[in-house]
Amino acid sequence: MRIEFTLDCCDVERAEEFWTSALGLAVDGRIEGRYVALSGHGVALTLQRVPEAKTVKNRMHLDLLVDDVEREVQRLEGLGASRLTDQAHHEFGQTWFVLADPEGNELCVARDPEG
Amino acid sequence: MRIEFTLDCCDVERAEEFWTSALGLAVDGRIEGRYVALSGHGVALTLQRVPEAKTVKNRMHLDLLVDDVEREVQRLEGLGASRLTDQAHHEFGQTWFVLADPEGNELCVARDPEG
Repeated sequence: MRIEFTLDCCDVERAEEFWTSALGLAVDGRIEGRYVALSGHGVALTLQRVPEAKTVKNRMHLDLLVDDVEREVQRLEGLGASRLTDQAHHEFGQTWFVLADPEGNELCVARDPEG
Repeated sequence: MRIEFTLDCCDVERAEEFWTSALGLAVDGRIEGRYVALSGHGVALTLQRVPEAKTVKNRMHLDLLVDDVEREVQRLEGLGASRLTDQAHHEFGQTWFVLADPEGNELCVARDPEG
């Protein structure tokens, strides 16, 4: 069994641009205007074009664990992400920011406890 | 950078029971009634309790790539998953079923092209 993930998006090209840069993923293949298969850091993520826009908070999201949270958030903002909260969350000994990708999909940037 | 995933759920215990069995994941840790951290097959998945129920199709979902799709779908049904479509999808040389976990979160079961 292999486990992969698929993210719906309205603009596949924009999503590819953001997520390859954000996560340092490679493009493994594509079906033009429909699917783009990405992989890296042990993760396989397929971007899938759908007609409908995002409406509510996603039930599943990506977490990026990094050494320097503030620097990573600024880097992602430079790629088109936006902060959903101005302040970092501090709970359970963790520190994280909630961001959104260009289509509003939530992602968290947290301090890597193994970093 | 490490990449992990978080899935919202209303019933963390039920979600843990389903997802550990469905994916063969181990429990790495928990904050009782709030978070359960799972890992396996190179994937880290945290189950997070939220008050609100699922309302619309998820923007991000899991794909399981397996050798025998029909057998895997039947196994997942036995664990509490349900088929969202009676028939398999056949497109782009792939075959897959769309299922839902006990809280309705979509997951796809597809034939592993590398299998």
